[in-house]
Amino acid sequence: MSLPPPLVPPPRILMGPGPSEIQPRVLAALSCPTVGHLDPYYLELMNHMQQLLRRTFRTENQLTFAVSGTGSAGMECAVVNLVEPGDSVLVCVCGVFGQRMADVAARAGGKVTQIEKPWGQVFTPDDLAPALRRASPKVVGLILAETSTGAWQPLEEIARLVRDAGALLVVDAVTALGGIPVEVDAWGLDVVYAGSQKCLSCPPGLAPITFSPRAVDHVQQRRTPVQSWYLDVRLLSQYWGSDRVYHHTAPINMTYALYEALRLIDEEGLEACFARHALHHRALRAGLEALGLTYLSDPRHTLPMLNAVAVPPGVDEAAVRRELLSRFGIEIGGGLGAYKGRAWRIGLMGHGARSNNVLLLLAALDQLLAHEGHSFERGAAVAAANRVYELSN
Amino acid sequence: MSLPPPLVPPPRILMGPGPSEIQPRVLAALSCPTVGHLDPYYLELMNHMQQLLRRTFRTENQLTFAVSGTGSAGMECAVVNLVEPGDSVLVCVCGVFGQRMADVAARAGGKVTQIEKPWGQVFTPDDLAPALRRASPKVVGLILAETSTGAWQPLEEIARLVRDAGALLVVDAVTALGGIPVEVDAWGLDVVYAGSQKCLSCPPGLAPITFSPRAVDHVQQRRTPVQSWYLDVRLLSQYWGSDRVYHHTAPINMTYALYEALRLIDEEGLEACFARHALHHRALRAGLEALGLTYLSDPRHTLPMLNAVAVPPGVDEAAVRRELLSRFGIEIGGGLGAYKGRAWRIGLMGHGARSNNVLLLLAALDQLLAHEGHSFERGAAVAAANRVYELSN
Repeated sequence: MSLPPPLVPPPRILMGPGPSEIQPRVLAALSCPTVGHLDPYYLELMNHMQQLLRRTFRTENQLTFAVSGTGSAGMECAVVNLVEPGDSVLVCVCGVFGQRMADVAARAGGKVTQIEKPWGQVFTPDDLAPALRRASPKVVGLILAETSTGAWQPLEEIARLVRDAGALLVVDAVTALGGIPVEVDAWGLDVVYAGSQKCLSCPPGLAPITFSPRAVDHVQQRRTPVQSWYLDVRLLSQYWGSDRVYHHTAPINMTYALYEALRLIDEEGLEACFARHALHHRALRAGLEALGLTYLSDPRHTLPMLNAVAVPPGVDEAAVRRELLSRFGIEIGGGLGAYKGRAWRIGLMGHGARSNNVLLLLAALDQLLAHEGHSFERGAAVAAANRVYELSN
Repeated sequence: MSLPPPLVPPPRILMGPGPSEIQPRVLAALSCPTVGHLDPYYLELMNHMQQLLRRTFRTENQLTFAVSGTGSAGMECAVVNLVEPGDSVLVCVCGVFGQRMADVAARAGGKVTQIEKPWGQVFTPDDLAPALRRASPKVVGLILAETSTGAWQPLEEIARLVRDAGALLVVDAVTALGGIPVEVDAWGLDVVYAGSQKCLSCPPGLAPITFSPRAVDHVQQRRTPVQSWYLDVRLLSQYWGSDRVYHHTAPINMTYALYEALRLIDEEGLEACFARHALHHRALRAGLEALGLTYLSDPRHTLPMLNAVAVPPGVDEAAVRRELLSRFGIEIGGGLGAYKGRAWRIGLMGHGARSNNVLLLLAALDQLLAHEGHSFERGAAVAAANRVYELSN
């Protein structure tokens, strides 16, 4: 075998669906000296991190922590703790991640009812009401920010409806947390999970999660063991709670990074963080529209941090992404599932949501789309974005 | 709420049951710039890492990768892929981690038969033979390095016995890999998993794992879906295989660290690495015995990297660990389960297995045990360790 080459990752401008760009302070936190998972310093750090997570989730939920895995482990943790074999589960599907949750729930033994909407759309209370009556689910799953389509699912009214139907609501906030409001307590959400690598701007590897007291009661009253030992919150809560009972060896350095990322959000202020995501989204959107690109998500429900646009006819989807990466160092995402080969997904997440990134991407696309023979007014994209920035000053 | 304090982890000398001390190159690798999980650079890095993992596991197994979770997620990945509801599973239990595997297998729906030996002992082929006949298991689980007792389980003969009985052998090598031989191919092991934070000297968060072709066939022929979506190797192998189909967002920076840690082992040479662990174990052992401490594991089967010794009568177990940490910055572990309050667990893992650590710990224990009123010849521990080092030159 050849010698393994030295590690020299190229610097990238991460504007895909995640991971997002990492603030230098977070990278520095990652390489702080490792301590033990039962070290008094680490136990204290866990307390501080839980407080920051509660603030970010806008919740008082005691059981708020980070799952030792990526966002999909957060999804699995939410589902396998709530669902017992034979339980009726209703999952709302209008993209890859709703579909994934339905899959996870079925593997947990749930009797899964899926309701579907076309990709790019969101669910209304009227969509859910009949399904709630028909399925009378114990658990309902919904994606707040569908990363495959860029659609922003309104939750407040639906959460009320689900609660009135006596079900628990699981919300996927993987891409949402830190970029748009996730009002766990005000909206009465039961289990909400996120990913470290989207608007929190931390490398991938941890999944913040929170369980309402109602959800905790539900787990305590299960008749069957949680199928996953690794994700069983009855065990995990003894480590994250005051007992500090060893469960598994925590990912120490990733916890450092997530803590520092949450501190950065706390310093900026959560509302300021949302406003920043919204501003750069408006600028990017003005620019993309000036390039003749159209959004795939319902225009009334477009996420600021995930911009899914249709690839214009005649343009080589993969070639444009390849050139962005090789010539400009910019990563954007392609389409998943129904959008494969038809979409670009442009992320403005956390530290990546800033004007330098927006302007550079628009300038690069101006060059590449012209080369692809796509017709648009040259230079108009950057000008349109700059107008948005000038108006915001 | 108070302001979250800045992150300032204290430097520690990690001589507990893991995490182990991290070589500076590995910490530096952690904070390299994050790239996307489908970036051509990252996909290439995955190839190189898989090659290094195969070399460390001494295997040609195609399906060799790192689970995106800690060692316990590796255990769960091994078990839930092999075990279907109703399958007979035989687990050998003589410590915490065997017990854990039995728990994980039961949660996967396995019909679990446990055979038990007193803590600190290991299983012989004669212990297994009757149990194999009685239970006729599809899957047998065994811990190569039982981190709770420090016992080193011989595997070669047992692996033959299990294979002859037509069962698949799952081996926990969490603490073993990189410190003692793990001969996946030569011994014919079916699924073997490890942790990044023991003898590989990488922070916790990843679990190297390997599946034999026989194990892969078994998974392909399952009648039921794997209960975990996150850990389903049929899906994972499409991302780690040549297809590179997106599954979940890989923990990029942790992968950098594990890659660098594996490169360090490769540079040293696996055999030299084993010899180093053995040498420092002999020196530590000579010193601990000079302090009048006795090993809890069967003396013929003592792990080099995990030294579990009995706390002498009249000595305050927790106070000694607390003073080691606060006055010397040294972490050692307490006992788990049956050994709670009765044992110290001293790790010599990876970068932590070096003479400075051994000598300093013995010097500190000389001071603290004397203060506790324990009777021994002062200074003899360091002298005994030094004799071992001098003889090895």
